[in-house]
Amino acid sequence: MSRARLAVGVDFGGTNIKCGLVTLSGRVVRSHTFASAACAKPAAFIECVARSVEQLAAAEGIRRSALAGIGVGAPGPVDGQRGLVQLLVNVPGWRKVPLASRLTRRLHLRAVIDNDVNLVTLGEWSFGAGRGARNLVCLTLGTGVGGGLMIEGRLFRGSSGTAGELGHMVIDPRGPRCGCGARGCLEAHVGTAAIVRLGRAIPRQGIGPLTPEQITRAAERGNRRAQAVWARIGAQLGIGLANVVNLLNPDRIVIGGGVANAWRWFYPTMTHTMRAQALAVPASEVRVVRARLGNRAGIVGAAVLVWNELGER
Amino acid sequence: MSRARLAVGVDFGGTNIKCGLVTLSGRVVRSHTFASAACAKPAAFIECVARSVEQLAAAEGIRRSALAGIGVGAPGPVDGQRGLVQLLVNVPGWRKVPLASRLTRRLHLRAVIDNDVNLVTLGEWSFGAGRGARNLVCLTLGTGVGGGLMIEGRLFRGSSGTAGELGHMVIDPRGPRCGCGARGCLEAHVGTAAIVRLGRAIPRQGIGPLTPEQITRAAERGNRRAQAVWARIGAQLGIGLANVVNLLNPDRIVIGGGVANAWRWFYPTMTHTMRAQALAVPASEVRVVRARLGNRAGIVGAAVLVWNELGER
Repeated sequence: MSRARLAVGVDFGGTNIKCGLVTLSGRVVRSHTFASAACAKPAAFIECVARSVEQLAAAEGIRRSALAGIGVGAPGPVDGQRGLVQLLVNVPGWRKVPLASRLTRRLHLRAVIDNDVNLVTLGEWSFGAGRGARNLVCLTLGTGVGGGLMIEGRLFRGSSGTAGELGHMVIDPRGPRCGCGARGCLEAHVGTAAIVRLGRAIPRQGIGPLTPEQITRAAERGNRRAQAVWARIGAQLGIGLANVVNLLNPDRIVIGGGVANAWRWFYPTMTHTMRAQALAVPASEVRVVRARLGNRAGIVGAAVLVWNELGER
Repeated sequence: MSRARLAVGVDFGGTNIKCGLVTLSGRVVRSHTFASAACAKPAAFIECVARSVEQLAAAEGIRRSALAGIGVGAPGPVDGQRGLVQLLVNVPGWRKVPLASRLTRRLHLRAVIDNDVNLVTLGEWSFGAGRGARNLVCLTLGTGVGGGLMIEGRLFRGSSGTAGELGHMVIDPRGPRCGCGARGCLEAHVGTAAIVRLGRAIPRQGIGPLTPEQITRAAERGNRRAQAVWARIGAQLGIGLANVVNLLNPDRIVIGGGVANAWRWFYPTMTHTMRAQALAVPASEVRVVRARLGNRAGIVGAAVLVWNELGER
């Protein structure tokens, strides 16, 4: 496989940075994950990524110049055309950083950047659960709730690059306060913090703070309260999906992120509520499926962006 | 002007049918409005429209063969590619009606059809308040609340032709029941019925049922309760707009329909709520403006569709 043309995909997450070599057919041939903490500021990030790329290329026995380019997904709004990271709220030092040009200077590779959830969407659409969809909504569930949109087969970024913010759709104006300052956003209802708050009375095994995974394990052991938490989360998700279905009439919705591991527990109420609230025609058009690429989606999507934007495909 | 190339635009409304001759630059040179009641069923509709087109052409001194084609906006879901009206919920007899081919057979004119709100959107984008927008959301306020989307300069219809159903976005799951069966849709909060319900205690002049226009007149006379009705309607609209702004990051939102006549009364709370609830970047990108074409928007948009689809432009 070392002769196949490879692109570098980078997923810049809050906890880890993931860097991989990806083939034209979306296969990750080699990847490398390192903690974000020591590599979070712009200069350190670029240096960490550069070393990782050098190691990956060396391990694969190829020269850096044989790489098609590098794509990076950043956790915040990005101006892709200018290669600029606008602002990363959760990572200090990132405001108007010309990441693409700095990566190119350091690595001598062409570089493209986008928002991380956009690249997950592009990855799932190209090689995962979104394959073949014409109009796709991708929802990622975790501490934050994110979204990305493929419209008529193209990533839709909106007029200033922020389209797809499904997590901040208000689904109940009397609902809980959201981190964004508004009240009743989807994220305030179904983000990790909300799930844990709903589940706080559930008896759990082990020590440390309650997590969605523990609630899922309790549900699997037959705990009714844990099952009810997921049923409620599903119903809230269903309202968000119904709104998206009515507004965009997509043929596919892909749901990923760590919290999607509780799929079988929230799926029934999610789809029931979605179908009850959405209009009949678009509700019958859409298929709601679970993401397939797991935590590879971001780097795969970043590599797809390289080929799309740099014309290697 | 009789030498300018003209297209026929038809707006099929619940009360009236409007039929007009429209120039390439969006000017309505002559139009004709007739009651829908006698022309509602498919065969009658086609006959009424055909006679109207003949009269308009005669009055303008042109032959029917000089017309570029006919475009029709229908109040329900349409399969534009097949020229099929899927179903008009409020007009009996319309289920899977091949309207385009029947119009062509009767009128010997090429025919295109679309959903009425899509054509209002296209009209406002081409020649009205949406001019120059890249990503546009058009919202129509009246008995029903409708919406249309222009994405990257193209009308976006979704995967089964129903995209843009802003009226059925759930903004409060404990809100009033909507005609669609769901609870808490935007239409159930800001449609004419909801406005009148909020305003029922307002003293009014004249007889007959209370209307939004009467509430506006009361507001203009200084009636605080009437002003409070519009302030509340504005706040509800603001939540709907915030959701659309977060999801689609449009650069323009155009608001039309009869209820938009109360613009100055609901605008302040609408924009205040929208900006408070939406994320900062997309909120600062969007301009919210009032529609400009009034009740001509539908026929102008229908004519634009003729040129776009039939390649006369």
